Amino acid sequence: MGFVPANPDFERRTRESFDKQGAMTLIGAVLEKVEPGRVEIALPFRADLSQQHGFFHAGMLSAIADTAGGFAGFTLFPPEGAVLTVEFKINLMAAADGERLHAVGEVIRSGRTLTVCRLDVFVVREGKRTHCATGLQTLMCLVGRSGVSG
Amino acid sequence: MGFVPANPDFERRTRESFDKQGAMTLIGAVLEKVEPGRVEIALPFRADLSQQHGFFHAGMLSAIADTAGGFAGFTLFPPEGAVLTVEFKINLMAAADGERLHAVGEVIRSGRTLTVCRLDVFVVREGKRTHCATGLQTLMCLVGRSGVSG
Amino acid sequence: MGFVPANPDFERRTRESFDKQGAMTLIGAVLEKVEPGRVEIALPFRADLSQQHGFFHAGMLSAIADTAGGFAGFTLFPPEGAVLTVEFKINLMAAADGERLHAVGEVIRSGRTLTVCRLDVFVVREGKRTHCATGLQTLMCLVGRSGVSG
Amino acid sequence: MGFVPANPDFERRTRESFDKQGAMTLIGAVLEKVEPGRVEIALPFRADLSQQHGFFHAGMLSAIADTAGGFAGFTLFPPEGAVLTVEFKINLMAAADGERLHAVGEVIRSGRTLTVCRLDVFVVREGKRTHCATGLQTLMCLVGRSGVSG
Repeated sequence: MGFVPANPDFERRTRESFDKQGAMTLIGAVLEKVEPGRVEIALPFRADLSQQHGFFHAGMLSAIADTAGGFAGFTLFPPEGAVLTVEFKINLMAAADGERLHAVGEVIRSGRTLTVCRLDVFVVREGKRTHCATGLQTLMCLVGRSGVSG
Repeated sequence: MGFVPANPDFERRTRESFDKQGAMTLIGAVLEKVEPGRVEIALPFRADLSQQHGFFHAGMLSAIADTAGGFAGFTLFPPEGAVLTVEFKINLMAAADGERLHAVGEVIRSGRTLTVCRLDVFVVREGKRTHCATGLQTLMCLVGRSGVSG
Repeated sequence: MGFVPANPDFERRTRESFDKQGAMTLIGAVLEKVEPGRVEIALPFRADLSQQHGFFHAGMLSAIADTAGGFAGFTLFPPEGAVLTVEFKINLMAAADGERLHAVGEVIRSGRTLTVCRLDVFVVREGKRTHCATGLQTLMCLVGRSGVSG
Repeated sequence: MGFVPANPDFERRTRESFDKQGAMTLIGAVLEKVEPGRVEIALPFRADLSQQHGFFHAGMLSAIADTAGGFAGFTLFPPEGAVLTVEFKINLMAAADGERLHAVGEVIRSGRTLTVCRLDVFVVREGKRTHCATGLQTLMCLVGRSGVSG
């Protein structure tokens, strides 16, 4: 959407912050594209990411969606800004049954204090890509406080 | 709230289903109380559940909140019903900074097809309990279809 | 998005239902485009639609957003289906300060029982169109019951 | 919940602000209790507040819920603060079929910048009170800017 990052070093900073998230390492999430206002995260299937029917657990799906949105906002923050998820909402539209999830976080509105992102998750099964979840997220940019993030 | 479970065996069935969730085992979540329309889940802190500032990752917090709500609804379902999270929304109100999270899912409205739950998460730090997140969740009871759950 | 309506008479039926909504008449909302899975509603400014600062009241904005989404889902329902809003969530991204609001409801996922819509509201001020709100909505298709809608 | 208002004159200020909302006058909403962190609004039924089945329109219901929450937050703001609804989400749990709606907004978390409220709406029909909607809302306190509210 033509966002101009406030920090030219946004990609390196985003990747560094992602690498510090123990939870993303635990579940095997991979940070893919990092663009101004847009971040993609992939999650390959493992049995230990499942719910009782063997599909991806909605909580794991939500975790990568929230993280993709949080970092999408973060790419536009000033160098000293930390990101906090204020709230998010997600609709699970189809079973997350496949080999891989693909979460896309995109900034819709970038404000000084608050940022709004759209979250979309796709499941890939035998080459077929299904839009399995969509959400909205509100982020806060914290400056000069030790922040809490996505 | 005085809900009467449709299945007298609701607790055993809920615990069995929880045990099949690979994701809950992976993160170390513990199913605590299981009552009609109300379920509690605890999550002890581990470094691999964190975000970049060392607190609980919002995605892990959301995962136990969604699961607590999903099973709270499930306790009231008929024996043949499977639970599907239609959507949930969560507000993160304070840093999830502590030794342990405690998620409570409670049914507010139990319908034939749809159930609405309140989700609350508390963080415990040095004995102090802080209400760090609150949410709302819509569940669907699927009968005669292989379901997708929490 | 290429939805095929289950009822070829969807437009007439949607306009008839809209005309029965006393609330839409009260506030002066106008049903504009009605397409399969997509509905637009306009709301010209009046002082009696305002909040304390003289802008459009968020509740009036939400009312037309919810209605646009509800009828977007309705266009795809079978002839005997009634529409029920299960829930919706809306982010207010900019002041609704202008001569006219324009709400767009679009179906993202059309299921047998549940439909998910995206809601977007634009405010027009001196010819400039600003995306002032975005939301997500879950609808239910009720067959054979007197329904509650929009 | 024991909130202490930052402005001892909170009730008068809240009632004044409510009276400036053209939209609340239009629909006939009545501001009832105003307490620190808690506001109640009633809405008597009129045919011009209905949807196509003759019940209260979900948009009108949402309008009073959003307003009750917005003013609940406002009661705790400093004298120079204006209130902005960042977002809200509402679940419609039962048909709003009755003589009167009763909306309650309650602050769950009061922060310097952001406030989180719970929204509950009850419908009264022949003396019976039904909990027909529940929601969550995020508010922002704006100081030194012309705000957007309710």
